[in-house]
Amino acid sequence: MTHPLQVELDRRPEAAPLYVQIRERLALLIRRGDLSAGTRLPPERDLAEMLRVNRTTVVRAYGDLAAAGLVHAHVGRGTIVQAASQPIRSVPPTSSLMGRSAANLPEAFPWASYLREATLSGTTEVALTGAPPTISLNNRSEASQGDMLLAEVVALAARDDVISLAAGTPDPAFYPVDEFCSLLTSQLRADGGHLLQHCPIEGLESLRSSLASWLNRRWQELSHASGLATGQAVPLELEHLMVLSGSQQGLWLVARGLLAPGDTVLVETPTYLGALRVFAAAGLRIVGVACDREGMEPEALRSALERYRPRLVYCLPTFQNPSGATMSLARRYALLELAQRYQTPILEDDPYGELFYAAEPPPPLAALDQSGLVLYLGTCSKILFPGIRLGWIAAPRPVIAQLGLWRQYIDLHANTPGQAGLDGFLREGLLDAHLARVRERYREKRDLLSDALETMGHGLLHWQRPDGGYYLWCALEGGLQARDAQEEAARLGVAFVPGDAFYPNAGGESHLRLNFTGPDAASLQEGARRIGQALERLSRRARRQERPPVLAARRPLV
Amino acid sequence: MTHPLQVELDRRPEAAPLYVQIRERLALLIRRGDLSAGTRLPPERDLAEMLRVNRTTVVRAYGDLAAAGLVHAHVGRGTIVQAASQPIRSVPPTSSLMGRSAANLPEAFPWASYLREATLSGTTEVALTGAPPTISLNNRSEASQGDMLLAEVVALAARDDVISLAAGTPDPAFYPVDEFCSLLTSQLRADGGHLLQHCPIEGLESLRSSLASWLNRRWQELSHASGLATGQAVPLELEHLMVLSGSQQGLWLVARGLLAPGDTVLVETPTYLGALRVFAAAGLRIVGVACDREGMEPEALRSALERYRPRLVYCLPTFQNPSGATMSLARRYALLELAQRYQTPILEDDPYGELFYAAEPPPPLAALDQSGLVLYLGTCSKILFPGIRLGWIAAPRPVIAQLGLWRQYIDLHANTPGQAGLDGFLREGLLDAHLARVRERYREKRDLLSDALETMGHGLLHWQRPDGGYYLWCALEGGLQARDAQEEAARLGVAFVPGDAFYPNAGGESHLRLNFTGPDAASLQEGARRIGQALERLSRRARRQERPPVLAARRPLV
Repeated sequence: MTHPLQVELDRRPEAAPLYVQIRERLALLIRRGDLSAGTRLPPERDLAEMLRVNRTTVVRAYGDLAAAGLVHAHVGRGTIVQAASQPIRSVPPTSSLMGRSAANLPEAFPWASYLREATLSGTTEVALTGAPPTISLNNRSEASQGDMLLAEVVALAARDDVISLAAGTPDPAFYPVDEFCSLLTSQLRADGGHLLQHCPIEGLESLRSSLASWLNRRWQELSHASGLATGQAVPLELEHLMVLSGSQQGLWLVARGLLAPGDTVLVETPTYLGALRVFAAAGLRIVGVACDREGMEPEALRSALERYRPRLVYCLPTFQNPSGATMSLARRYALLELAQRYQTPILEDDPYGELFYAAEPPPPLAALDQSGLVLYLGTCSKILFPGIRLGWIAAPRPVIAQLGLWRQYIDLHANTPGQAGLDGFLREGLLDAHLARVRERYREKRDLLSDALETMGHGLLHWQRPDGGYYLWCALEGGLQARDAQEEAARLGVAFVPGDAFYPNAGGESHLRLNFTGPDAASLQEGARRIGQALERLSRRARRQERPPVLAARRPLV
Repeated sequence: MTHPLQVELDRRPEAAPLYVQIRERLALLIRRGDLSAGTRLPPERDLAEMLRVNRTTVVRAYGDLAAAGLVHAHVGRGTIVQAASQPIRSVPPTSSLMGRSAANLPEAFPWASYLREATLSGTTEVALTGAPPTISLNNRSEASQGDMLLAEVVALAARDDVISLAAGTPDPAFYPVDEFCSLLTSQLRADGGHLLQHCPIEGLESLRSSLASWLNRRWQELSHASGLATGQAVPLELEHLMVLSGSQQGLWLVARGLLAPGDTVLVETPTYLGALRVFAAAGLRIVGVACDREGMEPEALRSALERYRPRLVYCLPTFQNPSGATMSLARRYALLELAQRYQTPILEDDPYGELFYAAEPPPPLAALDQSGLVLYLGTCSKILFPGIRLGWIAAPRPVIAQLGLWRQYIDLHANTPGQAGLDGFLREGLLDAHLARVRERYREKRDLLSDALETMGHGLLHWQRPDGGYYLWCALEGGLQARDAQEEAARLGVAFVPGDAFYPNAGGESHLRLNFTGPDAASLQEGARRIGQALERLSRRARRQERPPVLAARRPLV
């Protein structure tokens, strides 16, 4: 990759002076926003060396830029790019690098102000409902600020110097790469012309049919394990399934295709932060329902249904993200009955249900649903690997048809090589074998992290070992705040997600979510040690400063 | 796949009577919408056989359903499902198939009325601007109706009995399946743990970097071929690129992330129908600009910029879809200057630029852009294969960052196996070799279809052989209408897209778009023959009826 300041200089005699060429290239990069405000330009000597010009040439170019207000020379700090929100016309276009006449040389497009307008005009004013536990997150700029969190969770996990317990990813060491490649290759070589063509919006028929069989069988097995006589009322068929590019896409399709801005959605508290972001971006009113270790409290749910008349209930009944809680069978029936009574569909998000480390969990709501009001989301991202970008939604046909209308706008259909690979994986029975393997390993990793944290023994952190899923949901003791802990932990090179990210409104300030599936054993050990150290430092400092513990103000998610 | 009416009957003595079990299963399927209004149930004898019950058992079940208004028995037509928009409570829940008490048996959820509300509440009223060439397509239900077109184009192409010249797909016979599989496999086997993990929202760095190199080189080559001294003002770097799940996604991201409902976008007439659909769904005001064989007429463009102050100009400058037109270099400069003068960014869609069958076309607008106002879309779907779902957008960094916020909602990032394969393909120089090969073949196919249509010799169809791209854009003579031709052609087993689909408002009624890249040689020959036959029939009928040719009313896109 070339350096962005690697200006191609035209050294022919008829060309513009070198300092002009350098100045104009830099001015263009600054105005386009490629060099953003606050960026430090290379020292004059370094740039001169890089471009093989005299140092005075660069000095002159920098001088012109400073005169035009595009950069500022700070003694000791170097030359810093200034904010350029408006097109600035004071740099005279004395030459063109492109061989066009000077009079025609255009100004750089003012993207900063253009994008500011985009953000402002997109803001939808929606009245805040006064009473807790309601909040509206419909302000696009607010949403946008928080929205970087998902991206940063992904980015953090990729950094070498940080141990990240933040992202919710599987362990790459367990990826069945060879099997997947073999299946993919054999299918593509046999029928690549067909498989690499467009497929139906809902996905490859063959995959939908093998997914339906697998889900029907598993739901029946889970029903039997819970002592129920039969499975769901209407077995899934391929027409009830749409293959998604990850289950995140299902959240967006439902929010956008079935609901309208201003509609209310009920969520668990805490709940999946990606769902909160999508619902907010879709202009929905998000109402949190109080939860205990068995999921939403029925009376809180009933009163929220009565009061807010929502158009959707969103929940993760099994090994919930982040709490690890699992709804009991009785609660599941109660939820279905309430949803039926208030004629409100349920969006059931089930990324973790197959990852149980003790007894099998109750069957999903979709398997107990008698009236077809449950929409069911599943994904490869937690049980196989996320890079493949495959998930699925199971729903009655009219819902699938409606979601298909919106699907066309965003990617037409999921990638077919991945679909073919997954189809093969299911048909060969490899998914069950793979799940049996990772359940063992993830239980070990859960215990490893849990034991390592307990060994710290300072009593600043409390949690319950979850019976499945990906996370330890930990409560901080002694009035410690997760955001403060996060800062301290970052200094020691360990990352996690602070609890408030999982609440639509206030809440979770003294919680943190630790992932135990992604990092390797050594990282879990060392991560626990660093977290322990961070909490001890924080606790010592709090005592030294003799500040009473205060509830931290809500800060932007960074 | 099991038949949807394959009811699992409980034949134990304590179970509900068999006719009740059948009745309740059917009632559930009808109320959920799985059996939609108008569906014909199997004849009683057939269902009885399928379920291994007495015919009288089925007769009794059907009788109950008819009494409840869920089906209607038509003499000679059989038993037809009726519309069930409301939950119907007249079928007494006398038993439960699930072993739960009858009193608890829930009604099926009324999806039909729920979805009707979704459609109604999503309708945004936006004032229609009176004068042509303006139209607003912001009514969600209207958009939804038209939206099936893309899906149907894809579906039609998959039907065995129809020769489809409708879809815009490459020829599967040319897919480089073996090379692609080898590259994919070697990369995944070497580094699957990393490659199958999440990647940055913008895509794999390695792919973005190889894409940037390839685009920079090609744009420079095209610039030189057009007699220009240098390439674009700022060479692309990986930070200027976001890998998309198809370029359709780029249209949505720009429409949703940079513009707000009510904003105006200028488009060519005709233009890509998928863009019209996305812009309409995003609530944009779509204004068509008059075009000739060199693209948008500068004066029409200037006056539309002046009058409507749009926030975006959308265009396909090279081998346009559907017209095949290519903007001259002079027109490109004129467009850039106007966009600069009116401070309006351009979204350049370039799926076909590499598919030239004569001289190389002028460089894309993005390569001529001095001020960074061009956003550039490219895709694998036309030059490699569409199943991989990969495209890209090149833009200044602040734009990439803004689009990334919205990207998180819909799929987080593109599938990584496909990205790794494409990266290998670019790095091995295989894309250039592949393009050289398909250019040859597609020129032959263009000529094949063109010659075959000329051989018909009835003079009812006129077109100009395009210098590149995918389509013949044909004008019907003698007042014939494309929608009538489409009906007639469907009877003869050949499909194409009628021209009005490519216009935001009226227009294109006497045009049709024929794809010559997807079908094999025999299908192109036979397709041309059937089209010729359809047009002759239509023409004869028009003369026989001595109806004056009338401008057909705009009909729903089906």
